[in-house]
Amino acid sequence: MIDQRQLPWTLTHIEYDDYRDVAQAIHDMVVRGAPAIGAAGAFGMALAAYQSPSMDMGGLIEFLEVAGLILNKSRPTAVNLAWGINRMMKVARDDVYSSVKEIRDALLAEAQRIADEDVALNQRMGKHGAALINDGFCVLHHCNTGALATVDYGTALGVIRAAHEAKKSVRCLLTETRPRMQGARLTAWELDQLHIPFEIIPDSAAGYYMRKGEVDIVLVGADRVALNGDTANKVGTYMLAVLAKENRVPFYVVAPSSTIDLETATGEQIPIEERSPDEVRKPYGSALIPDHFPVRNPSFDITPQKYIAGIITEFGVIAPPFKENLPQILKRKK
Amino acid sequence: MIDQRQLPWTLTHIEYDDYRDVAQAIHDMVVRGAPAIGAAGAFGMALAAYQSPSMDMGGLIEFLEVAGLILNKSRPTAVNLAWGINRMMKVARDDVYSSVKEIRDALLAEAQRIADEDVALNQRMGKHGAALINDGFCVLHHCNTGALATVDYGTALGVIRAAHEAKKSVRCLLTETRPRMQGARLTAWELDQLHIPFEIIPDSAAGYYMRKGEVDIVLVGADRVALNGDTANKVGTYMLAVLAKENRVPFYVVAPSSTIDLETATGEQIPIEERSPDEVRKPYGSALIPDHFPVRNPSFDITPQKYIAGIITEFGVIAPPFKENLPQILKRKK
Repeated sequence: MIDQRQLPWTLTHIEYDDYRDVAQAIHDMVVRGAPAIGAAGAFGMALAAYQSPSMDMGGLIEFLEVAGLILNKSRPTAVNLAWGINRMMKVARDDVYSSVKEIRDALLAEAQRIADEDVALNQRMGKHGAALINDGFCVLHHCNTGALATVDYGTALGVIRAAHEAKKSVRCLLTETRPRMQGARLTAWELDQLHIPFEIIPDSAAGYYMRKGEVDIVLVGADRVALNGDTANKVGTYMLAVLAKENRVPFYVVAPSSTIDLETATGEQIPIEERSPDEVRKPYGSALIPDHFPVRNPSFDITPQKYIAGIITEFGVIAPPFKENLPQILKRKK
Repeated sequence: MIDQRQLPWTLTHIEYDDYRDVAQAIHDMVVRGAPAIGAAGAFGMALAAYQSPSMDMGGLIEFLEVAGLILNKSRPTAVNLAWGINRMMKVARDDVYSSVKEIRDALLAEAQRIADEDVALNQRMGKHGAALINDGFCVLHHCNTGALATVDYGTALGVIRAAHEAKKSVRCLLTETRPRMQGARLTAWELDQLHIPFEIIPDSAAGYYMRKGEVDIVLVGADRVALNGDTANKVGTYMLAVLAKENRVPFYVVAPSSTIDLETATGEQIPIEERSPDEVRKPYGSALIPDHFPVRNPSFDITPQKYIAGIITEFGVIAPPFKENLPQILKRKK
């Protein structure tokens, strides 16, 4: 894994040989971003298969079930983690395999397939989304949705990238994304390398620029999309959606269909992770707020579907009403 | 002055013997908050009167005119600075004085009067505003509007304080207020001393708590109120006002009538100060963002009058339509 906590200062890679360390890394946000932790969870499962001391397939599957529970509870909001783990368990339980070795090899291949598919999906989403970006557009972007948040290419940032690759002139306003500064540190770092012009703004200045008329479109990723279109994403997304509606700026969610959760009817059912107050008090070790001041740190919020102009998936741009149009997309997938 | 940049860690006082250093202190935000810089500007003018080497009254007034220009350009958005300086110049030019010494003494007395009046005004606003706070209310508060932002007692925070003194149970959600963290550092420090319960939240989580139904009222201060009610205040205020409207949470501005600018018809005419990107990149010296990443740092924004439920002044709570009701208040003042 790239240690995302060290960026933009240094590009450090960490290797893991224990799936429990992978779970801890997801919890500690060495890796973050819904699609990225989906793939990390899948590779964690493959790693667990090789760690299992069991000589028989039943024992291996029991070991994997425990590993799946441990990996799954490392972050609660993004559906991709559970999705990746479930996909791995389905392979492990497939009765075509006749040895522990065959299951192990199949799991490693499946994790690699999840990773490869993610990149291909992102490129397809990028193409669909780029059609919404006119030459000269200013895109307001929240958090990080780029290569770092996925396996490669990105979701919302993938759309920006695809527009740039199609030779459209595009510039970005990046919310810094307190408390962990993913916009200012990760998205800025990626855009800097891609030579796409950007400016970082405090999260609370987003409304100022929308009202000034500087923003042509808002693009965000998603950690989980409910069947009615309600979207869980990094805290602050809801605020941007309301401001976009008020200022008649189109607000789009960019997410692969795996982020749409069949088990979740509306946003009300999505658990919101609350993280340590110290992330707010001392970002990356810099003490800005004393330890004894109480702080609340919700990591996500829910954007009701009514604020969303469209959801950009690998199958194209889904328009409202999402309650009818999302299930159709999921059917097409099967 | 209290050096507000050192809070909440240490309470440090700085003495100035040159009005140009006072101007620099206002620029550097040793002191900030619209009413506080109004009083600081007035004392700066009194100091300038004692610094002037002129033996004749005409020379003194010329010296003061230069001092007024230098002090006035230290911060552009708050009207209180110009208001305080103008009030001092009116005294200096009054033909009742017959010596340099008399003018100097009158100016020092006037600066002290401005300071004393501010405290009395805040207490009156506090009483008017406290009537809007029910027992058990949760108040969402932005930036710092307390004793530190004024001469004492506070504007929006004065309302919270008055409700607390009236034995109402009140708790506060404080936006941290990036980039300078006035909410997390100054307002939290004041409420901690007043034993009023509070929790700090990232700015972008304000919408999350409003949508959850946790917020009963939003209270903010103001740097300048236009005659139609449009209000300039710390960046992020506009965002809170839009979110409040969307969630049917009443949004009030607390400001003395001196913050209403007779010269400004609408918010469009209010200059918005852009401050150094380094405030965002390295808050209080902690490098969070590399120097070569472009950053924009608007210090204020404009909240259109249509989002404001009322403006709490020393004369009571002014309801919309502000275009008609604000001029009436100003007439009553004369």
